[in-house]
Amino acid sequence: MSDSSSASVRPYLASDNGVGVSPQILAALSAANHGAMYSYGADEISARVERRLAALFEREVAVFLVSTGTAANALSLAAFTPPWGAVLCHADSHIEKDECGAVEFFAAGARLVHVAGDAGGRLDPEALAVAAQMNKGDVHGVQPACVSVTQISEFGALYSPDHLNAIGAVCRAAGLKLHMDGARFANAVAASGARPADITWKAGVDVLSFGATKNGAMGVEAVVLFDLDKAQELAFRRKRAGHLSSKMRFLAAQMDAYLEGDLWLANARHANAMAARLEAGLRAVAGVEVVQPAEANMLFVRLPQTAIDTLLAQGFRFYADRWGAGVIRLVTAFATTGEDVDAFVAGVRAAM
Amino acid sequence: MSDSSSASVRPYLASDNGVGVSPQILAALSAANHGAMYSYGADEISARVERRLAALFEREVAVFLVSTGTAANALSLAAFTPPWGAVLCHADSHIEKDECGAVEFFAAGARLVHVAGDAGGRLDPEALAVAAQMNKGDVHGVQPACVSVTQISEFGALYSPDHLNAIGAVCRAAGLKLHMDGARFANAVAASGARPADITWKAGVDVLSFGATKNGAMGVEAVVLFDLDKAQELAFRRKRAGHLSSKMRFLAAQMDAYLEGDLWLANARHANAMAARLEAGLRAVAGVEVVQPAEANMLFVRLPQTAIDTLLAQGFRFYADRWGAGVIRLVTAFATTGEDVDAFVAGVRAAM
Amino acid sequence: MSDSSSASVRPYLASDNGVGVSPQILAALSAANHGAMYSYGADEISARVERRLAALFEREVAVFLVSTGTAANALSLAAFTPPWGAVLCHADSHIEKDECGAVEFFAAGARLVHVAGDAGGRLDPEALAVAAQMNKGDVHGVQPACVSVTQISEFGALYSPDHLNAIGAVCRAAGLKLHMDGARFANAVAASGARPADITWKAGVDVLSFGATKNGAMGVEAVVLFDLDKAQELAFRRKRAGHLSSKMRFLAAQMDAYLEGDLWLANARHANAMAARLEAGLRAVAGVEVVQPAEANMLFVRLPQTAIDTLLAQGFRFYADRWGAGVIRLVTAFATTGEDVDAFVAGVRAAM
Amino acid sequence: MSDSSSASVRPYLASDNGVGVSPQILAALSAANHGAMYSYGADEISARVERRLAALFEREVAVFLVSTGTAANALSLAAFTPPWGAVLCHADSHIEKDECGAVEFFAAGARLVHVAGDAGGRLDPEALAVAAQMNKGDVHGVQPACVSVTQISEFGALYSPDHLNAIGAVCRAAGLKLHMDGARFANAVAASGARPADITWKAGVDVLSFGATKNGAMGVEAVVLFDLDKAQELAFRRKRAGHLSSKMRFLAAQMDAYLEGDLWLANARHANAMAARLEAGLRAVAGVEVVQPAEANMLFVRLPQTAIDTLLAQGFRFYADRWGAGVIRLVTAFATTGEDVDAFVAGVRAAM
Repeated sequence: MSDSSSASVRPYLASDNGVGVSPQILAALSAANHGAMYSYGADEISARVERRLAALFEREVAVFLVSTGTAANALSLAAFTPPWGAVLCHADSHIEKDECGAVEFFAAGARLVHVAGDAGGRLDPEALAVAAQMNKGDVHGVQPACVSVTQISEFGALYSPDHLNAIGAVCRAAGLKLHMDGARFANAVAASGARPADITWKAGVDVLSFGATKNGAMGVEAVVLFDLDKAQELAFRRKRAGHLSSKMRFLAAQMDAYLEGDLWLANARHANAMAARLEAGLRAVAGVEVVQPAEANMLFVRLPQTAIDTLLAQGFRFYADRWGAGVIRLVTAFATTGEDVDAFVAGVRAAM
Repeated sequence: MSDSSSASVRPYLASDNGVGVSPQILAALSAANHGAMYSYGADEISARVERRLAALFEREVAVFLVSTGTAANALSLAAFTPPWGAVLCHADSHIEKDECGAVEFFAAGARLVHVAGDAGGRLDPEALAVAAQMNKGDVHGVQPACVSVTQISEFGALYSPDHLNAIGAVCRAAGLKLHMDGARFANAVAASGARPADITWKAGVDVLSFGATKNGAMGVEAVVLFDLDKAQELAFRRKRAGHLSSKMRFLAAQMDAYLEGDLWLANARHANAMAARLEAGLRAVAGVEVVQPAEANMLFVRLPQTAIDTLLAQGFRFYADRWGAGVIRLVTAFATTGEDVDAFVAGVRAAM
Repeated sequence: MSDSSSASVRPYLASDNGVGVSPQILAALSAANHGAMYSYGADEISARVERRLAALFEREVAVFLVSTGTAANALSLAAFTPPWGAVLCHADSHIEKDECGAVEFFAAGARLVHVAGDAGGRLDPEALAVAAQMNKGDVHGVQPACVSVTQISEFGALYSPDHLNAIGAVCRAAGLKLHMDGARFANAVAASGARPADITWKAGVDVLSFGATKNGAMGVEAVVLFDLDKAQELAFRRKRAGHLSSKMRFLAAQMDAYLEGDLWLANARHANAMAARLEAGLRAVAGVEVVQPAEANMLFVRLPQTAIDTLLAQGFRFYADRWGAGVIRLVTAFATTGEDVDAFVAGVRAAM
Repeated sequence: MSDSSSASVRPYLASDNGVGVSPQILAALSAANHGAMYSYGADEISARVERRLAALFEREVAVFLVSTGTAANALSLAAFTPPWGAVLCHADSHIEKDECGAVEFFAAGARLVHVAGDAGGRLDPEALAVAAQMNKGDVHGVQPACVSVTQISEFGALYSPDHLNAIGAVCRAAGLKLHMDGARFANAVAASGARPADITWKAGVDVLSFGATKNGAMGVEAVVLFDLDKAQELAFRRKRAGHLSSKMRFLAAQMDAYLEGDLWLANARHANAMAARLEAGLRAVAGVEVVQPAEANMLFVRLPQTAIDTLLAQGFRFYADRWGAGVIRLVTAFATTGEDVDAFVAGVRAAM
């Protein structure tokens, strides 16, 4: 599907949302295009997706399909954060850096408050415990209401079950709700081998943005709600935000195929393997410094600026200039091929 | 594609969003799934869509693809209505009845104010001219800022060019902006034969929700902005609302195929023809009263309640109970077949 | 205090917020200006006001002083209405007509929905019962959450205890919360002789905007909360809206003096008596039609337009032109004198 | 007026909003209580206040009186910051720390972004110039729209004219608007001797929260708008936020008396002199460390914790525990007496 290994096209490692769609998911769209169905989710495919996710998470869940990760995150957090509330998160989290204030919009002006983390962008439970007490009961200050963690983090780091349990414990102790931005949740499960239940609700997660778009879907994410009392509210919030798809079956069909036969895991394992191969290849190139290793499907390396310029000029596609001098981000996806990886490594070697 | 004429499945006339997707549009999704592309609209298909819409409207436009009509409407109106502003609209408009307050959400608490219309749900220009002066400059009252018309209306009625020009003139005289909810714009163009330019910007429309989903797309609508000064604002609003698709090429591919070879018009003409056939068929049944004739792809008829109950029990799918005693709404779509229509008419005749 | 009976100044009957402040309330401000106190309500006068209001309403209450009626109404309603909720109210209510969308602002885009009433602007319980079921559980429509009644109404009409009990019963049956805009609550109590408890929480009112400004205070209203679970939320909402006064003792001192020795009732009784005298006087003038009699401190009469023009030209102050041809509104206040009333009646007689 | 020097009451140095009201301002309230006037600002005193502020700032201004500083700040910033905009400010600014998210509320979810400053809490122009370019034109990130400076800062530091000019230059270069939180503007003018015009609009300030409450008023602040194009918007925003006082003359009367005969400057000079006396007195006590000297009417000192505990136990009133171990904040006001100061110094000496 990816032609990025063709003679004329350079590998695309800029993001996992720049490659296309898994063939199984495309096929599911065609299969779903059969006859008339009541719209807005009152269709059989939507019902099946809910059952599949309940099975995956080993418990009852409420599921809200939306077309973007920003919608999933902002809806999730709005349901748990009053307007005068604060969402505690990492300063480099997606909700802070890349969603143009969507959380503030959906949550009627709630505030994101930064909590320190480690080099991988994972929240520090001790810092979180301190922040959780911020302004407590003081009418002059915003009130911590939610914590948002990103699994894997924006820097590609994996939260361990222990780490998540520690964060969950802080949340429970302080009466905060816990949201997980799982845009790359599949990559985390593939990398860790953890059971989805163990790194979500059993660790204290109340609501999960279960991503699919970056891992082979065309455009669908699931808000997976473990706190069922919020289901009705989420339904209204989704509609009101223009995120209730009329021909919902086509969002559902994507998610259905994504879960069928564990396509989601297979895609993520492939992407992760490609990142590992990339890391190994680059480590063998003199002058390349691995800044953040590939814990899942993303790594950061430092190159000489001249090498970066050469690679970009040659048409290699990746992002630079956002993470300090000479640091570039490389993201692999379900469609990244071994040839892509090897071509990139060869390109770096030549550019050094 | 529709199996609604099969022996076991009754025709679906509940809405034009319950049928599936045009085969050309499905095919376009597959064709777009080729290689990597920068995301968020920086792809060639998105650029081509903008060119196609500019050609269609015979002028420069700014285009914002989103996945739902609610998003298109609410984003359009928010860009032109301050929080203390009012949107003048019909009491039965979609933004009022069916979007769960999306406009109020996107426009930070602006208000919808009802203006009287005719039996078809079309705004009355004279009533509009009065409403446009409401609270003028009075700090205690919300300030009319926008007018929203629906083409075709929620009752299936077509605005004539003259009617729209009259409304546009009121807007210009009062300094109001004009939005058109064109969820069924294609049906209006097909029904009237009007040039798109003539019933939009040349009549004073500043922004159009150009629908595709109800007419054969999977899930895409275009905000077509004629007031280019608002383009940057709309870009931020779209992102912030979670409506900037990462794999934008797949929204663009739908719209591209929809416009290619005037598929949009062909689909709409078919749907309209089916509605006309339906009206003709029903008029021939004694005891059926046509409440709102099929000006495009929708009609309303009055039946005895026993007939309605019988039809629903038999599996015919349509909506009742919302428009007065015995009135049902029938909507045809690109996938409605002549057999569907004839089966429904036969069903009604049998049920009387 | 009012010099409106002096030779050169015409009576002011435009509103009860155009006259000044009761001398007792001014004196209380001076008395409160003694020494330093912790700010933001942690002072003794604020505590005393809360005790006084608890005594007045014969139960525990939570009290939030603010400086305007708009703030009191919007804060009250925001605490009980989710963003996708609807506030059911009369089309001529103050929250609808005169607050520039404050409810929509404070409640993050909730909607006001009109319910029919009688000629006095009092909600009809039967119409309310129907509206309360609007969109019930339908994700496409805003959900009724609150009812707001105005006591006395914008047309000066008094809700009887029976009427309020009927409304309260509708609210309880439908799970709606009940807000009372009591900008002129004192006039209602004075007119009816009802116990405050009987026409508020015992009738089902959950939160009351207890007005003082129109009845002799300088600028203070109390949100009186009967549903104490909402107290913390209201505290945050008030602060966040800029309505937590730092030198709160001076709001409290006004309310304290207002309640001391039932000044509030004495002021209201006087205002009501003046309105009754005005009505009696005008009824004796040939050609004057009483459109809405003085149930408390407000009445509406119809005069020939020439008489209205003459009176305004002579400097008599009142509002016209908002309630149909020839209808004027006359409002009396604690500072209105018998001379004011008689001068106005004489003016009308002369102008006819 | 202050009885804090009496035998039984300890000096109050917790804040300048805990003391009472200047007698001249109280007297003005009584004087304003004369006859009826049209409400909502259509009175002569309001007009006079606008003229006085125009004279003070040596140019045309638009004036909006409100009852709290939070309202003044949030309204000012909302008028210049779109929902997807960012307000650049110090991490310890009042809008960030003490207003419970009011800016986010009024500005429909805009974000506060922190910019580094010096030890006194004054923004660093170079850091500001970098922050001003943040996310520029990137639809994924919030867009810097406004800068907010506090004069004097939350740490009592004075911005020099040069400093403000440097900030103003950054704003102009980057197309940002500049807001000044002047809750203690009078103290800044008194301390610096600067002309109000020079440290506001001539330095690039677009809108000023001109404080009076902390400096002797009962509860009034003026939004002083130098960008007159925003005047109409501010009028609607004020009303909609419940901050348009009906009996506006009584807000106006406070401001009128505050400006009359430069009472505002006299009060501020007195407060500043008391702070200087306090600093001098404390410097003479062994073991007291002055952390932030008294540039205007506020200083921060470090004491042994035992001394702090002793002083608080004895009834001295000030805030501790917010600025690091052993650091206390001391604020003087127009009503602080030399005896207050000396009693506090003596108390500290005794407690060491």
